[in-house]
Order: sequence, then C-alpha cells, then structure tokens
Amino acid sequence: MTAFDELVAFDRDTQALAQIAGRLGWDQETMMPRGAADQRGDEFAAIEAVLHARRTDPRVGEWLAKAEPGDEVGAAILRHIRRSYDRTNKVPAKLAAELARITSKSQGVWAEARANNDFAAFAPTFKEVLRLRREEGAALAEGGDIYDALLNDYEPGAKSADLVAMFDAMRPRLVALRQAVLDRPEPKALDRHFDEAVQLKLSTTLATTFGYDLSRGRIDKAVHPFSSGSGNDVRITTRTAAYDPFNCFYSTIHEVGHACYEQNIDQAYLLTPLGNGVSMGVHESQSRIYENQLGRSRAFAGWLYGQMRDAFGDFGISSEDEFYATVNRVSRGYIRTEADELQYNLHVLLRFDLERALIRGELEIDDLEAAWNDRFAADFGYAVDKPSNGVLQDVHWPVGLFGYFPTYSLGNVYAGNLHAALREAIPDLDADLAQGRTARATGWLRDNLQQHGGLYEPRETIVRAIGKEPTEAPLLDYLDAKFSDIYGL
Amino acid sequence: MTAFDELVAFDRDTQALAQIAGRLGWDQETMMPRGAADQRGDEFAAIEAVLHARRTDPRVGEWLAKAEPGDEVGAAILRHIRRSYDRTNKVPAKLAAELARITSKSQGVWAEARANNDFAAFAPTFKEVLRLRREEGAALAEGGDIYDALLNDYEPGAKSADLVAMFDAMRPRLVALRQAVLDRPEPKALDRHFDEAVQLKLSTTLATTFGYDLSRGRIDKAVHPFSSGSGNDVRITTRTAAYDPFNCFYSTIHEVGHACYEQNIDQAYLLTPLGNGVSMGVHESQSRIYENQLGRSRAFAGWLYGQMRDAFGDFGISSEDEFYATVNRVSRGYIRTEADELQYNLHVLLRFDLERALIRGELEIDDLEAAWNDRFAADFGYAVDKPSNGVLQDVHWPVGLFGYFPTYSLGNVYAGNLHAALREAIPDLDADLAQGRTARATGWLRDNLQQHGGLYEPRETIVRAIGKEPTEAPLLDYLDAKFSDIYGL
Repeated sequence: MTAFDELVAFDRDTQALAQIAGRLGWDQETMMPRGAADQRGDEFAAIEAVLHARRTDPRVGEWLAKAEPGDEVGAAILRHIRRSYDRTNKVPAKLAAELARITSKSQGVWAEARANNDFAAFAPTFKEVLRLRREEGAALAEGGDIYDALLNDYEPGAKSADLVAMFDAMRPRLVALRQAVLDRPEPKALDRHFDEAVQLKLSTTLATTFGYDLSRGRIDKAVHPFSSGSGNDVRITTRTAAYDPFNCFYSTIHEVGHACYEQNIDQAYLLTPLGNGVSMGVHESQSRIYENQLGRSRAFAGWLYGQMRDAFGDFGISSEDEFYATVNRVSRGYIRTEADELQYNLHVLLRFDLERALIRGELEIDDLEAAWNDRFAADFGYAVDKPSNGVLQDVHWPVGLFGYFPTYSLGNVYAGNLHAALREAIPDLDADLAQGRTARATGWLRDNLQQHGGLYEPRETIVRAIGKEPTEAPLLDYLDAKFSDIYGL
Repeated sequence: MTAFDELVAFDRDTQALAQIAGRLGWDQETMMPRGAADQRGDEFAAIEAVLHARRTDPRVGEWLAKAEPGDEVGAAILRHIRRSYDRTNKVPAKLAAELARITSKSQGVWAEARANNDFAAFAPTFKEVLRLRREEGAALAEGGDIYDALLNDYEPGAKSADLVAMFDAMRPRLVALRQAVLDRPEPKALDRHFDEAVQLKLSTTLATTFGYDLSRGRIDKAVHPFSSGSGNDVRITTRTAAYDPFNCFYSTIHEVGHACYEQNIDQAYLLTPLGNGVSMGVHESQSRIYENQLGRSRAFAGWLYGQMRDAFGDFGISSEDEFYATVNRVSRGYIRTEADELQYNLHVLLRFDLERALIRGELEIDDLEAAWNDRFAADFGYAVDKPSNGVLQDVHWPVGLFGYFPTYSLGNVYAGNLHAALREAIPDLDADLAQGRTARATGWLRDNLQQHGGLYEPRETIVRAIGKEPTEAPLLDYLDAKFSDIYGL
C-alpha cells in the first residue's frame, strides 16, 4: 500500500467513528432515557478521546509527508486531512482539555443564568470561556488574525474582512426594509389548534416532497430540530406546537435541506473527508434555500395551502394570497431562531460585530450586555426587555462557538445567489412548485453543488454552482421584491 | 497514579466504548434506516478495531504485571481484565480477521439456506466456520480441552464434563415428563385477536411490575426481543403477535430479567468489568426465573388473568385455573425459541451434545443433519419435517457460537436453585405474586445476586446466593410438581 492508501484507510475508520459519535448525539436528543445522562457523558468523552488520538496520530503526519494524491479527488482528501491534522496539533493538549472542561461546565451555568435573567451570574464563567478560546485562536492563528482562525473552523478560507464588507452593505438596506414593513399592517396570523399528529404526517410529506430519502434517514421529535449524520444514515428531528404548524413544517424543510445535502453527496466519497457538507455556510445555504426561497415562495405556499386545507379543513385563511402573506409574516421579536427571513440577518450581524470585538479585546464581557442592548435598539427600533431575550438567548457563546454566527448569514447570502442562478436556469420553476414538485430545483442543487461534498473549498463550491463570485446583492434584491410585494411598499 | 489506577482508567474508556458499540447494535435492530446497513457495517468494523486494539494494548500487559489490587473488588477487576487480555492475545490476528470475515459472510449464506430448506447449500461455509472456530479453540485451550475453551467465552470457569453429568441426569426425566404430559389432553389455547397497542401497554405494565426502571431504560419493538446495555442505559425490545399475546408478555418479562440484572448491579461498578452480568448462564438464570418461576407461577398468572380481562375483556378463558394451564401449555413443536418450559432444555441438550461432537471431530458437518434428526426423534417422539425446523433453525452455529447453547440450560438449572432458595426465604411469596407484587422476590435476587455484577466468578455467584452447590434437582422437582399438577399426572 502507498502512503496515500494507508492514510485514507486510517482516515476511513476515523470518519466511521465520527459518524458513531454523531449518532450518539442523535440518540441523546431523541431516545436516551434521562437517567443515562451521566453515563453518556463518559461514553462521549471516551469516543472523543479516541477521535482526538487518531486525528493527532504521528503516523498521519508521516503519511501526509509522503502521500501522492494522484488526482483532484486525492488532492482534496489530503487537503482536508492535513487541515484537520494541523489544526488539532496546533492546540496544546492542556489547553484542549481545559476548553473541554470549561465548555462542558459553562452550558449548565449559562442555562441557569438565562432562566434567572441574570447575566452577571454567567459573566465569570463566560470570561473564562472567552479567555481560553482567545488562547486557542492565538495558537491556531500563529500570528495571523485570531478571529479568522476561529471562523475557519466553521468556514475554511473565509476572511472576516470580506464578511464585514458584505454585511456592512447589507445592514442599512435590511434596517430600512424592516422599518418599512413594520410600518404596514400585519398580515393575519394563524389562531387555531392544529392536531399535532396531523402536523407530523404533513411534515413527513413535506420532507419527501423535497427529496429526503427515508430509506436512508428518519424523522423523530426533539426539543430542537437538527440534522445529523452523513452518507446513507442522515436523520432529522422536528417539533410541533399546537398553535403554530409553520414551526413544524418549516423546521422540517430547513433540516431536510441540510439532510439532502448530505444524502446527495457522491457515494464515491462515503466515509472520506469529502463525504460531508463542505462548511457551515454552504450547509446553511442549502437549508435556507429549501426553507425560504423555495418553501416560502408564492408558488409553493399555494400548494401548501391546499395541503393544509386537506389536512386540517378550514383554518381561517381564505386565499392563497392571504396564506402567502401569513407564511411570510414579519413581527416584532427578540429571538434569532424565531426570526423571519427579513429580520434574521440583523440578529446575526449584531452577534458577528460583538463577537469580533470580544475576541479582539475591544469589548469586555462586563460591557457586553449594554453593547447588545444598544445595538438591538438601533437595528430593531425597540428595547430588549430581559437578558433571556437578549445577550443570554443563544447557546453558541456559552460553549465557546465564536466565529460560528456569521456562517448563518453567509449561508443566506449564498442561498440568494444560488436562487438567482436556479431561477435563471429554470425560468418556469414556479409551475412545478405550485404543484408541490421540487425535483427540478433540488436536482439542480444536487448536480451543481451538493454532489461535490468536500471536493472544492467552500467559496469555490458556490462559485462553480453559480458561475461567478457571490455577492450580497441577490439576497437583498430578492427580499426587497418579496416583501415589497407582500406588504405593498 | 499507580499501575492499578492507570489500568482501571484505561479500561473505563474501553468499557464506555463497548457500551457505545452495544448501543449501535440496539440502533441497528430498532431505529436504523434500512439503506444504512452497509455503512453501519463499516462503523461496526471501526469501533470493533478500536476495542480490539485497546484489549491487546501492550500497556495493559505492563500494568497487569505491576498492578496491586488492594482489595476484593480490585482483585476481581484485575481478574476480568487479565482474562480478556490473555484471551485476545492468544488468538493470532490473522485468525481473528479470518473468523470475522467468515462469520460476517456466513450469516447471509445460512439465512438463504434456511429459507430454501437446503442444508447442503450451507455445508461448505459451515465447514469453514467450524474449522476456524476449532482453530481458535485450540489457540485458546493451549493443550487443554478445546470445547471448554470455547465454553469459557460465555461461562468462565465452566467445565463441559460437569455439564455432561448434570445434563445426562436431566435428560431421561425430561423425556419421561414430556411423554406423560403429551399423552394428556391439551389445555385450551388462546384463539382471539388481541389488539397490539393494548398488548404493548400491558407489556410495559409487566416490565415495571417486575422492577424495570424506565428512567434508565426504554422498550421498543424489534423482530427478536433482546436486552442491551449496562448500568444506567439498559434497553429492551419486545414484539407482538395479534393472536399470541403471551409471546409479547413473556418475551418482555424475560428481557426484563436480563435488564434488571444489569440495572441492579452496584453503581460503584459502573464502567468497570464488574458492571456487567457475570456470565451467560447467570444472566439466563435471571431472565428465566422472572419469566417462568415467577411470571408463569399460578399466583402471578392469576393476577395476569385479571389484567388481561381488564385490558381485553372476555377472551374465552373462564377461570384462573384454566388460564394457568393455558399459560403453561405444552405442545408439539420444532423450534427452541418457541418451546415451553418443559421441553426447552431438551432442545438445548441436543445441541450441546452435537456441538461437542463437532468441535472434537467426532461428528462431521456432512453427518450433522442426520444426527440432529435422529436425536430429535428420540427425545421428542416425532420426526423433523424440514431443515428450517431442525438443524438450520438457530443462528448460533452459523456465526460460530459453539459453546453458547449449554449456558441456556445452565441458566435454567441455576434458576431452579435460586427459586428453591427464594421460596425458602419468603414462604408466603405467593400472596405477593397473586397481587402482581414482585418486589420481595426481585429484591431478594438483587440483594443476593444481581448487585454483585462481576465481583465473583459465575458459579460462586450462584453458590453465594443459594448457600450451597447448585444441582439439577430443584429444576426437575419444580417441573415435575408443576406439570403433574397442571396435567393431573
């Protein structure tokens, strides 16, 4: 066997073990009896230790030094393995252990502080998390930009300077559009009780409508919807709320976007580093285009309106137009995960600016709550009422995920670009969507993007799909047109 | 850290990884989408390779050479780790790999041969499985008895000579009792449709009635009932048959016996080698005493009769006595897993004698089908009609599990001894059972046996619980009394 073959064989087992660890996470959120929580912690620690040892195994370094890729696929595989090997080895074992210890503890402290709306109770732990992640960022950056080093854990190759330019161009247009929309009368909201078993049934119909392959996946209920796994075992979860069936339906479509990306990767890449979605941003572009540009389009909403009337009878919405407005209703709110398509990115941009300042030492934890509240008031036009609706709402920072938030908005920007290209390629797509047929749209995404998995770098993956460099313009133009139409601006 | 502490810490992660592998098996039988089967095979191979590497890690040998146990618990932990280390290292890696390859292939070949009732189609693969397991047995036995070496994988310390003496004493009494019973009129069988959702609900009631802790376990449906996991995550499966609710109920109670053994082990032994049931035979003694000596007792059957009437209404059985006879009905049949309490051990004894002859080279695969059919006719009084009802019925031999079968009957013998001791300790137990209260019985088993986990050797575990050496007599006396009563012998 060549060094390349030995390396790939070794990495294949590492990939398989990572799949197992992922399945264990799925089990924890869906099936695990509650009394097993402590034991599960030990099980996670054991398999994470195995994965860490394999990722830093000195043989990997030796194989990497000798391996000849042979072709484009081999070169891409080596690039991923080298990045993972370098990344893991740059962080001193002691620091990695301290980070694991503090982030496992901090989640509980944060949850209690959030429940009590007491930011000060979380601040000391938060400072420790931030200090250690800064230290890790410095080790990864090797003299370069610390924030970019953290960002690249989620979005390899991305530079915060590029994102700043893009997001700074988005913010004023989003604020202006939000203001214009919220000055208009609100569309009707749903106000009926929707049987939860029927919601789940229709949600499964939606999943398969968007191409989710249930012979290689499954749908369960969980507190937070998520997608988990790669290749031929990609599972999603959803949730139901009796008075808000859109929560179930659009959570499902969102997770189906993630899951279909994984399911549609070339089977030749199974259990290689190419067999996973290439980055958080590209992943989010898929979940968002399924959920929003396709799922909340006028044409598809019209079809869903018929499905819901068949399933639930009359539910107080009298036309497709009214339903379309209800599906895309913009309301005042504080919570990112509940935000509509228009306001969502304002939530993210706020976090992106604040976390860069935190990592760069330009903002201290003690000043964070005030900074959050000032920025929120400026962008949303009203004040945060309590920390659980503000700075304490997300789990990301408490567990040290700095550099993750911008990938959400980058995904939305990518979705805007992909949607423009998709509409250009399939001008009569609405005729399909109006009948609940997504195959041409999802097929285009599969052929032009999803199948490649990790073959290309994240941004190159998008460039190849759309044939040009992505910009924020298509997303903003789409939002302007859509909400001007719905709100009569 | 001392060598002992280092060894135990290392082994703790190995135990945690073994739990993960077990949960993966549970997932495969209950939750896994069918399209994930191939990928799951790779995942299993990866975690099994990790476990094998840890079990043969040279550091384990070094720690074992230096470790000082300190106390009885430490000595027991070292005994288990040393046994596993020696066992794994005795088998050459090449042979282990060949065995893994052939037994993964042979299951499919066997399933097809069984479906076609064609023993000859399986014989070539079967010969290869047998040859490799003999070779493994020889490596393990190091000049000693090959069959005993295989047996000790499942029942450490057991000697086949002892089992032969015990089983040879059982066989004529079982044959005579079977004959006498089958000469009498058959009790009434159930002949109604029993709603499967109601079966599952009552089966959950039965599980908790026997002390199964659902906060540290869960019940799902699977093709074959099983119990899986140790410590605080012990899951069982059951199944339903519309016309045979006893299949569901007694499968559940059986698996609850296995699961409660695991759940009731001293929490101090969690993720140590003492934190698992000590052997197959002792495990089976728990599942059998829950299922048969308790669950099929006259007193408990009386309570179950009331529960079933509450759940299903009149189902054609008019008294507790009639119900008791129906629950313990003995019928002609070919299949071990469907056999009643009386005939079950005759099925096992047949396999035990044939597999010893196979391993010792006294019987060839080509002669096995005829040998099976002759022995079956002698012990059961009628002829096997087809291989799927005979030599091809069990998965054990096809996947190389020689030495496993006798642990079933050993478990029944142990259950007989435990039951006699239990009745002596709690003379008025029937008053509890008649009201569906099992706590004194299961509490006695927990305190006298289950809590010890792997602290003592298997046979010593039984001796400590019953205060003497176990023999076949209590089981045979119990069967004689029970079936003489029911059948008016």
